[in-house]
Amino acid sequence: MTPGSGSPVASVVNRNRRILLAARPQGLPKASDWTIEDAPVAPLEDGDVLVRVQLLSLDPAMRGWMNEGKSYISPVALGEVMRAGGVGEVVESRNSGFAVGDSVFGSLGVQRFCVIAGSKLAKVDLSLAPAAKWLNPLGMPGMTAYFGLLDIGQPQAGQTVVVSGAAGAVGQTVGQIARIKGCRAVGIAGGPAKCDFVVKELGLDACVDYKAQDLKAALKAACPDGVDVYFDNVGGEILDTMLTRINPRARIVICGAISQYNNTQPVRGPANYLSLLVNRARMEGMVVFDYAERYPEAIREIAGWMSAGRLKTREDVVEGLDTFPDRLLMLFSGANFGKLVLKID
Amino acid sequence: MTPGSGSPVASVVNRNRRILLAARPQGLPKASDWTIEDAPVAPLEDGDVLVRVQLLSLDPAMRGWMNEGKSYISPVALGEVMRAGGVGEVVESRNSGFAVGDSVFGSLGVQRFCVIAGSKLAKVDLSLAPAAKWLNPLGMPGMTAYFGLLDIGQPQAGQTVVVSGAAGAVGQTVGQIARIKGCRAVGIAGGPAKCDFVVKELGLDACVDYKAQDLKAALKAACPDGVDVYFDNVGGEILDTMLTRINPRARIVICGAISQYNNTQPVRGPANYLSLLVNRARMEGMVVFDYAERYPEAIREIAGWMSAGRLKTREDVVEGLDTFPDRLLMLFSGANFGKLVLKID
Repeated sequence: MTPGSGSPVASVVNRNRRILLAARPQGLPKASDWTIEDAPVAPLEDGDVLVRVQLLSLDPAMRGWMNEGKSYISPVALGEVMRAGGVGEVVESRNSGFAVGDSVFGSLGVQRFCVIAGSKLAKVDLSLAPAAKWLNPLGMPGMTAYFGLLDIGQPQAGQTVVVSGAAGAVGQTVGQIARIKGCRAVGIAGGPAKCDFVVKELGLDACVDYKAQDLKAALKAACPDGVDVYFDNVGGEILDTMLTRINPRARIVICGAISQYNNTQPVRGPANYLSLLVNRARMEGMVVFDYAERYPEAIREIAGWMSAGRLKTREDVVEGLDTFPDRLLMLFSGANFGKLVLKID
Repeated sequence: MTPGSGSPVASVVNRNRRILLAARPQGLPKASDWTIEDAPVAPLEDGDVLVRVQLLSLDPAMRGWMNEGKSYISPVALGEVMRAGGVGEVVESRNSGFAVGDSVFGSLGVQRFCVIAGSKLAKVDLSLAPAAKWLNPLGMPGMTAYFGLLDIGQPQAGQTVVVSGAAGAVGQTVGQIARIKGCRAVGIAGGPAKCDFVVKELGLDACVDYKAQDLKAALKAACPDGVDVYFDNVGGEILDTMLTRINPRARIVICGAISQYNNTQPVRGPANYLSLLVNRARMEGMVVFDYAERYPEAIREIAGWMSAGRLKTREDVVEGLDTFPDRLLMLFSGANFGKLVLKID
């Protein structure tokens, strides 16, 4: 790359298919909230690379990015490509840090090709783990689990950790790290298949089926010594019930609230929040981006647990760019089983 | 006191008037929830003292003690003297640590005379401050303010601290300690008289009148740099609105929820709790009894601020044991102005 050398040049690829946010959804997103279109690929400026998108991460947080209003990240603008983290392959480079054929992670968007500044990309090492793992235990869900549980939850060996969405992307890793740290780890998930997976495959001590069991009674049985850390991915009634089960000095990590993201009614606040007072307990929010400088530490440790066979994860890989609007809804009905990943055909 | 010497002896006082909890209230306590009776004074055992009750502390927390169920302290049993902290004078002693005439603080109960083990009493030094101050800045409200603000809220100089119930017992001291620590201190109180007092007498930077002003707009104006610490004594709508005003990494101290104590409906949970996530903020409960070993430290520091003229408090002293049931209700309508103290005639 020679500074000042380049005017934008046409790319080797000239057609891109992409999905734009067309409207701000009320409740669950529907077909008319999206535009699917073919468009020319933007020219590359100095420092840019062109990435062929291979796998996209579908996440509950996407629903929040579609809403107007102040949050930890600006909303996706109407008419803009839907934001999505993904893994892809460099097919053209005007950045000396990236060569054609490199595998990269970044905010690639829901599209086939992405022109992006190299400074916004990270290389991923596919010899360490396949691409889908870089969107799960070695990607944002893994980072969220690692820092949310260890930094905010601060579990001590012998304590009881409960995680909701236990078969989901973040939950899988939270539960297994809790076990690795010597805690009793209890999951909450929906349906017998997910609960079986959490106990038999992931090795948690117990898993409560919130769809089939009386939540309060089942939690009482699964957590005979109460709950010291609750990692909340769901909000709503489950959070409210968990507040009745916490021990003195408990920590509740607020990571998400998937039950509330498509509300057209006001969010349901945790009516039992005064349990925080009675128990001198804490409820604290976390946003994974705050830990960006420490991602390498977490990746190193999680990859070590994976290669030692101590941490397994499951990805639910579905295919087809155009199916994105429907696939996203799987997260809110609980139809996905494991981290939801969209493979771009 | 000679070990083994004493069988119980009749007291110098033989009639006691006392108020018992007769029923568990639904909503606001009413006359039929109480029994007022005259009864003999219990005989003193070795180690006991007989205290003439002079001043009783009336506190919102009393409402919680009247409910059945697990909490940070066991409920007052039906037929038992209502629990209350108070200051009194020793009139008889079978404990070598206490002499007739000593002024003491303890859980004396809503009655004229209290027989109590000396080990459960603390002497108070009326030369340092008059008795009512030992129920306010040098008593539980002051301890609650000191440890809740400094240990849980962790305000830094230059940050903004907001306290609700700012003219109340705990709130008065919270706001002034925030000022002493170099913070912008903003109160929330009901009515112009209390708001004037908070700004002009206590020296806070601003006070929002939640009864007259649009809470959100008024908070925005009073806290141009957002809110770093919110000390919550009230819960309900005020807590919910405060959640929309917090800064990243804010701390919300859950000290009480007076708006919710007489609910016959379920408690209103803070619907905006996801602001904790967006702002990586924390909401944490506190119970003052946990800090008992550090009370001397707080008393020393608060007394120092008082004698230096940096910390003032107002007590609202009302009279008459038999008026207790009505006086208690003043706390829930906001009719008291300052720390509510019942003088026993």
